[in-house]
Amino acid sequence: MNIYNLPCTMYKFYLSLHQNFLRTMATELKDLTKRSDDYSKWYNELVVKADLAEQSDVRGCMVIKPYGYAIWEKMQQNLDRMFKETGVQNAYFPLLIPKSFLSREAEHVEGFAKECAVVTHYRLKTNDTHDGVVVDPAARLEEELIIRPTSETIIWNTYKNWINSYRDLPILCNQWCNVMRWEMRTRLFLRTSEFLWQEGHTAHATREEAEDRAKMMLKVYADFAERYMAVPVIQGVKSETERFAGALDTYTIEAMMQDGKALQSGTSHFLGQNFGRAFDVTFLNRDNKPEYAWATSWGVSTRLMGALIMTHSDDNGLVLPPALAPLQVVIIPIGKNDQMSMLDEKADVIVNNLRAMGISVKYDNADNKRPGFKFADYELKGVPVRLVLGARDLEHGMVEIMRRDTLEKQNLPVEGIEEYIKQLLNDIQQNIYQKAVAFRDAHIYECDNYDEFKERIKDGGFFLCHWDGTAETEAKIKEDTQATIRCVPYAFEQTPGIDMVSGKPSVARVLIARAY
Amino acid sequence: MNIYNLPCTMYKFYLSLHQNFLRTMATELKDLTKRSDDYSKWYNELVVKADLAEQSDVRGCMVIKPYGYAIWEKMQQNLDRMFKETGVQNAYFPLLIPKSFLSREAEHVEGFAKECAVVTHYRLKTNDTHDGVVVDPAARLEEELIIRPTSETIIWNTYKNWINSYRDLPILCNQWCNVMRWEMRTRLFLRTSEFLWQEGHTAHATREEAEDRAKMMLKVYADFAERYMAVPVIQGVKSETERFAGALDTYTIEAMMQDGKALQSGTSHFLGQNFGRAFDVTFLNRDNKPEYAWATSWGVSTRLMGALIMTHSDDNGLVLPPALAPLQVVIIPIGKNDQMSMLDEKADVIVNNLRAMGISVKYDNADNKRPGFKFADYELKGVPVRLVLGARDLEHGMVEIMRRDTLEKQNLPVEGIEEYIKQLLNDIQQNIYQKAVAFRDAHIYECDNYDEFKERIKDGGFFLCHWDGTAETEAKIKEDTQATIRCVPYAFEQTPGIDMVSGKPSVARVLIARAY
Repeated sequence: MNIYNLPCTMYKFYLSLHQNFLRTMATELKDLTKRSDDYSKWYNELVVKADLAEQSDVRGCMVIKPYGYAIWEKMQQNLDRMFKETGVQNAYFPLLIPKSFLSREAEHVEGFAKECAVVTHYRLKTNDTHDGVVVDPAARLEEELIIRPTSETIIWNTYKNWINSYRDLPILCNQWCNVMRWEMRTRLFLRTSEFLWQEGHTAHATREEAEDRAKMMLKVYADFAERYMAVPVIQGVKSETERFAGALDTYTIEAMMQDGKALQSGTSHFLGQNFGRAFDVTFLNRDNKPEYAWATSWGVSTRLMGALIMTHSDDNGLVLPPALAPLQVVIIPIGKNDQMSMLDEKADVIVNNLRAMGISVKYDNADNKRPGFKFADYELKGVPVRLVLGARDLEHGMVEIMRRDTLEKQNLPVEGIEEYIKQLLNDIQQNIYQKAVAFRDAHIYECDNYDEFKERIKDGGFFLCHWDGTAETEAKIKEDTQATIRCVPYAFEQTPGIDMVSGKPSVARVLIARAY
Repeated sequence: MNIYNLPCTMYKFYLSLHQNFLRTMATELKDLTKRSDDYSKWYNELVVKADLAEQSDVRGCMVIKPYGYAIWEKMQQNLDRMFKETGVQNAYFPLLIPKSFLSREAEHVEGFAKECAVVTHYRLKTNDTHDGVVVDPAARLEEELIIRPTSETIIWNTYKNWINSYRDLPILCNQWCNVMRWEMRTRLFLRTSEFLWQEGHTAHATREEAEDRAKMMLKVYADFAERYMAVPVIQGVKSETERFAGALDTYTIEAMMQDGKALQSGTSHFLGQNFGRAFDVTFLNRDNKPEYAWATSWGVSTRLMGALIMTHSDDNGLVLPPALAPLQVVIIPIGKNDQMSMLDEKADVIVNNLRAMGISVKYDNADNKRPGFKFADYELKGVPVRLVLGARDLEHGMVEIMRRDTLEKQNLPVEGIEEYIKQLLNDIQQNIYQKAVAFRDAHIYECDNYDEFKERIKDGGFFLCHWDGTAETEAKIKEDTQATIRCVPYAFEQTPGIDMVSGKPSVARVLIARAY
């Protein structure tokens, strides 16, 4: 039987059977655990199978593969532009920090200095048996160097030389770099010993300006998360316990994953004069009096990749927002050998039109992979729109278009398909955002009863509860339920109430959740 | 005397006196050593005074300041695009490399393993007196980790899992990252313990394809150097002695600095099957037989910043090629207070027009710095074009335009100045390239007499000399003169001759120079 000689409807029916068969095959190839079976395993598998990242042979350090890195690059490009629009400039500071710097800011060292990679020597030598290398004991450093876990210390040590007068302020620097915090239990993107991030470090002449900057950068993060990642976030301020080491205030954006857990996705810190004082960074203010400089720092990391993956993806694989998808549209031809040149020609026109509209597109006419395999692979990789150019469909001026977010297929006229795709990409971006908002909003609860809270927190979700403001209550909640106070949310009308744990008065509800 | 009431020509004369006075003041501010007095000191001062970079308190590690980093970003953007146009994708591999990896490729360890930062511990703890931190002796790593001096080992250890069949090849990965090679004597950008670079690592099914890739990437580097940096380079292949550790062939681009010394500006290595063998990376070839994968690696680093600075700059400061200048045009107003709003308005139009043409421009109407100070500062920073909006000039529809490369000034009608600027930026780009070519060509000599060579090499320059191909001769030249064989140049018609040192037959002339 030559399926291409069948009437159009039968051909399509056959094709759909055939595609289902191929999809089954390909699905086995990808063999992804279902979210409902094991959310955590689903995530771990997805990251690897979708070619985003993998564990390296170096404990706790990941390899970010080209497809994963391409998403990260799109995040970087957009964030970088958004930072620059607020006057921030990029710079680069040393990877290694003298050990003594870490103890300069007392609170900071408590929070950070413990688990980090320590460089003690600067030379290897050939071993006695001449088949390997050993550390040269003669090449011991006088003072050990730490691989930066974050760069406040080395940067404020540098700013000291840059700042003399209020005229030198503000300084608005950012760096894109790698950092290292030794982690015992690691998960790709979510918690790795080495990760990539950006860290902004600003110095200001007044407290107010620094506080405004810290809040401004949180706003940039929230905008980025919502507009580009399509991840709704709750903005708020951390409790004292959860603050960054050395900060007077830590602002945070918290996103809800599909298992109802919170993922802290970005933080911005108002550091007061702590680092100015620790590194003796003074300036002459407008009254010609010396004053310590005011500081902020703020960062997002490759952890955002985890937020992106866990917010939208499904049991078929990744679902990527068009704004960050390395590839927005894939076109796959289906036809006999002698039809391929016609299909190639047609595809060429569509590809050029889409590219001219700024849409990234790949025409995959590789003949060593079957269409069903390609379908499953691009689904797994979350390409937002798939166009199937079927030879028979095209004879009738039609193409099949599938949107990855809903997996809905449509047959549409090929004429004008480019405009349709442009609109569809916008729709997908909006739809996955709205879907995430709806999911999140359906899993936010006000709760005033601690027993009820303890029961319901097991199923995940964000809880808005009254809190008496004490670290003791906070610790008890964490001990009883593993949940933590994620933040005091900004955009929430607050009324006083009673702490659900202690029964003491509370001025505001806080957001409590189990978190990554 | 109010100069604004003087007749136009007198006003200009006065203004020019005044500007000269201000320039003298500002020149003292910048106080740059002359190239002819001490080229090396001139370079060191320029890097710091032009706000490109500075030494950090961490031995051998630099801080790249925002202005310097902005140039590096422009280099990255263009190189990155050029790499991607050849099919390369970005990825990220771990910073730390297990010590044992380094001894896997025997030649590689000889060349690299010795001077590097060694991580031996992963935790600090508070000291006994509770006023600092010490390394926790309990947290000693079983196997020491090395901060990557280059990533062939960790990457080929990863590729092992990516490659099974010729269908998985080629793999064309690049990473932008930091690397570390412990250096005893460092110079900003030219030789620092930590530096930023890109390293491409490709794997291929055939020797030919790998060799072609290595040569292709050298071509990309040469194109970038010449078209963007306006730095002419000589492409060639290294002698065995000067090859990368583990390479079968190292291709190089060599640029001539204004002191006649060579700066190796980029290298591309054909690695044969050395890393495939060392890390057991085999694939089934088209005949279904296992074969070791063929490799290349190639890199350029922040050293390019050194090449850029030293090729074009002069005693007044940086001269930047418009293609890489963070700021291509600066507009400075000169007028009385009541004229400023008119000047601001006029500037606004020009700024918008230039931006619409894709030209980066800054209007500097800051009133806390005098025009002369601004002039000197933008000269120091190498901004290619300066426009002075003088209130009086503008009344006659004229502006003053200065090109940084020649310091030539012209008075031109403000009408149509944008088009003129666009053309001028192209002219500057071409002019500084041609100037560098002319300088380089005037300092390349054929030389067949060793005594003459030894005398003339003292003044710098590139020497094309016959070489018998032995490491002994190479070593003797180096010992006698500190000069090294930079490469066997590609684009040079070769005729056999006699080695100037040994008197033995030679098949080709090589390029010999003292080098950075």
